[in-house]
Amino acid sequence: MKRVLLAHGDGGLYAAALLKTLFMRYFKNRELARLSDAALLPAIEGRLAVTTDSFVVQPVFFPGGDIGKLAVCGTVNDLTAAGARPLYLTVSFILEEGLAFAELEAVVASLSAAAETSGVQVVAGDTKVVPRGQADKVYINTTGIGLADPRLVLGPERVSAGASVILSGTAGDHGIAVLSCREGFSFRTPVTSDCAPLNGLLDVVSAHFASICWMRDPTRGGVAATLNELAESAGADIVVYEASLPVRPEVKAASELLGLDPLYLANEGKMVLVVEEKAAEAVCESLRVHPLGREAGIIGRVEKGAGSVWLRTSLGGTRALDMPAGLPLPRIC
Amino acid sequence: MKRVLLAHGDGGLYAAALLKTLFMRYFKNRELARLSDAALLPAIEGRLAVTTDSFVVQPVFFPGGDIGKLAVCGTVNDLTAAGARPLYLTVSFILEEGLAFAELEAVVASLSAAAETSGVQVVAGDTKVVPRGQADKVYINTTGIGLADPRLVLGPERVSAGASVILSGTAGDHGIAVLSCREGFSFRTPVTSDCAPLNGLLDVVSAHFASICWMRDPTRGGVAATLNELAESAGADIVVYEASLPVRPEVKAASELLGLDPLYLANEGKMVLVVEEKAAEAVCESLRVHPLGREAGIIGRVEKGAGSVWLRTSLGGTRALDMPAGLPLPRIC
Repeated sequence: MKRVLLAHGDGGLYAAALLKTLFMRYFKNRELARLSDAALLPAIEGRLAVTTDSFVVQPVFFPGGDIGKLAVCGTVNDLTAAGARPLYLTVSFILEEGLAFAELEAVVASLSAAAETSGVQVVAGDTKVVPRGQADKVYINTTGIGLADPRLVLGPERVSAGASVILSGTAGDHGIAVLSCREGFSFRTPVTSDCAPLNGLLDVVSAHFASICWMRDPTRGGVAATLNELAESAGADIVVYEASLPVRPEVKAASELLGLDPLYLANEGKMVLVVEEKAAEAVCESLRVHPLGREAGIIGRVEKGAGSVWLRTSLGGTRALDMPAGLPLPRIC
Repeated sequence: MKRVLLAHGDGGLYAAALLKTLFMRYFKNRELARLSDAALLPAIEGRLAVTTDSFVVQPVFFPGGDIGKLAVCGTVNDLTAAGARPLYLTVSFILEEGLAFAELEAVVASLSAAAETSGVQVVAGDTKVVPRGQADKVYINTTGIGLADPRLVLGPERVSAGASVILSGTAGDHGIAVLSCREGFSFRTPVTSDCAPLNGLLDVVSAHFASICWMRDPTRGGVAATLNELAESAGADIVVYEASLPVRPEVKAASELLGLDPLYLANEGKMVLVVEEKAAEAVCESLRVHPLGREAGIIGRVEKGAGSVWLRTSLGGTRALDMPAGLPLPRIC
């Protein structure tokens, strides 16, 4: 049997076989092995953080990652942004009838490897199969449970004029990697997605936890959407310095060709941190110690204002960096 | 704007508008209002149960329920089956471009009402939009977090010969309701799905917790698949008494017409309980006090054996009740 059948989703023999021959081989732990309706976790002391995301990226495999790796990183990074250490994941697949088993196994293997890298345990799962043409290969939901670090107190109410805006690395890599793969563009220097689990970044900045006011991983809508959400909820303006924004030359070139702005492109391995000004340089230095934070830098500053985001251009001008609207980049994550 | 656009999934203005004008109206709580990347839950004392399910039922609206209600009940019932009180839900939507807002709102309203009925709080969410033809209207993932009741110790290792198998009500209602709605059959007595949250059943049987060995809500694959899984994991046989199985007359008639067996049809508001023989009658009486357990009865018995399930027919014969295989009823839940 080389392809997913409708019967793999019927709760019978085929479904049980898929569980045993594929999922249980990659996700080995006591909770999953019980095959119960719900996983029973050990008691956890402290406050939990919970987040959920569905992933529908197209194509399923792209330079630097695939939907399996993305489904882990996206949820791990959301927990990290909330100041929590990721502990557990649930994983739910919606499969299209006819999906090649080899593709499914590659996705599952990649998901499992990313979970191991991130130190999270997959404790519960589900698989549904829909008839051909009612999904596109595979969609994945991951829900993450993490342990909130009590030393991190994050929120827009902590963000005020003078604070520094830090980006942990280059902007737009994931967006360009997926779009160019999808459209079949080939650039001299191929662009690779930045898809990576960022929970390790928390460790390197732990000495500065008291100075960190807010974090968010800038995925859909990019850095621009993330900063607009922050500006609105904090009731302050944010100024971004174009000259300070790290962008790979190949991403810059591809963006210009496609008429896109790296500030609006999705990232899957970057964190925006808003930090008290006095600690900003030290936080950047700490981030740069980590392989995923090597290009961290201060890209902007919070200013008094009514909730707008401004771009100070390399030429010295200033223009509004609005919330994206009507520029749909479907299935980017 | 009457329909879902790709732009509603881009993380920009349209996505923010959908969140504010639809989701936040129905899901009001402090955690969601923070619009953070992850919800921060209060500390919970005890062991947590976690479960996840994606729902792809077709049609989205069926007699007795819809995909929103189903997405809550399915996950609440999985937590209940694990002996846990449902506390929190995450909800993730995959929407097809072009979905009518009125349909989406009806689903969200129903989901929100079912969450309230069940006493669970929706603390985190996500929405993706895929281009027309890459999903069928709406798919929903719910992940549930519950508090395990330490007085309930459930598992196949507790199931041994002599134990009674209880079903909390009639078999096959959901399967027939969805199939007849899908195929456009109209019966004299319309069949309604049993879709309902079963967490209330735990309260009425709490005096007998020590005698309850195992629970499972028999959804996809029906009672037959559930009992086959149990028989295999417990290493025992199970005998089902056909004459004792509660089946609505209209479900029986429709099943005969469609060539289906109610034992293999999905239920979304029923629980299978395996109980020590001495307590079985008392558990049934307790269940019958609850509106969702009124037709509870003993339907079978665990016997020594190698893991097979047998049907003692009304005529006195015995036949194997195998794990379903190759009878795909796609998108039944």
